[in-house]
Amino acid sequence: MHPLRAHIEELIPLSDKEFEFILSHFSHVKKRRHQYLVQEGDIADKEFWIAEGCVRSYFLGEDGKEHILQFGMENWWITDYESFVLRAPSKTSIDCMEDVELYSISHENREKLTSEMHKMERFWAKKSKLGRIALQNRILSMMKNTAKERYELLLSQYPQLLQRVPKKHIASYLGVSRETLSRLND
Amino acid sequence: MHPLRAHIEELIPLSDKEFEFILSHFSHVKKRRHQYLVQEGDIADKEFWIAEGCVRSYFLGEDGKEHILQFGMENWWITDYESFVLRAPSKTSIDCMEDVELYSISHENREKLTSEMHKMERFWAKKSKLGRIALQNRILSMMKNTAKERYELLLSQYPQLLQRVPKKHIASYLGVSRETLSRLND
Repeated sequence: MHPLRAHIEELIPLSDKEFEFILSHFSHVKKRRHQYLVQEGDIADKEFWIAEGCVRSYFLGEDGKEHILQFGMENWWITDYESFVLRAPSKTSIDCMEDVELYSISHENREKLTSEMHKMERFWAKKSKLGRIALQNRILSMMKNTAKERYELLLSQYPQLLQRVPKKHIASYLGVSRETLSRLND
Repeated sequence: MHPLRAHIEELIPLSDKEFEFILSHFSHVKKRRHQYLVQEGDIADKEFWIAEGCVRSYFLGEDGKEHILQFGMENWWITDYESFVLRAPSKTSIDCMEDVELYSISHENREKLTSEMHKMERFWAKKSKLGRIALQNRILSMMKNTAKERYELLLSQYPQLLQRVPKKHIASYLGVSRETLSRLND
């Protein structure tokens, strides 16, 4: 089974014909490590489904420091949603931390697909709810937990991430210095 | 025109019959100041649309301190989405800061309505995207901005909120002490 079909069918059953129709709205994309999916200031015209690889979404502080908003791995959907939905310049950049294989859908095709096919509207509505819950938990954790607790939460949620992502990016995600991160490791 | 209809029609046109069908899934609710919409630990079975009034969503830290996640006012949709979507105990409480008038929809009715009516799936999908964008911007702001900048952002986004919400809640939302908030006011 096509990996994207397997992914969608985790939530919504599809016929062969339906999946063929869905897939015709996507492009298959490969990117190399360090290449960008979204660049700050551009309008993010595509949403990406990650078939393989690991990416990060980040923004630059006024001091030029990188702040990591989120990571994306296999089976995640990612873009700068504010830019994608509101057609505004992106505040974040998304780049590849490994070679990645993706399926991308343009804003126009996504609008077409969701307005023509209730099932896909429903699929993405569910995904969007889960994305919102993840962000809400990120905020709760930022407000509530100590750096040590946030680190342990990240470890428990994404054990694989820590083997694949450089320490400096973990520190940036947690909003701590690399020195603090080293102490959390003790 | 019914206020809920006017609100939905900002995004999606409806016939009289369609709105009648939609409204039949909602209950009209009035709550007094200090009453709860959602209590931590319960399963949030309802999503609320605020016709009038102001509420806050918050959680308690281990020290018993309240941390405000968000405010809700006229035309906002609010619940604990993690609890509502995943049927899990709510991590947050939502209480009324004024007398409020609401339209509530149960999880079951929302599922029925969205599966039977593509238009409403589409309406809430759009609302969910906007909710996600607001949370993303909250995270960016927490990571990027100083307390002064976050305060000014809140002022510019919700000038009305500051007249309606006690100072201590503003401090809690910004994650600063009341003393720090007073200094930000200077």
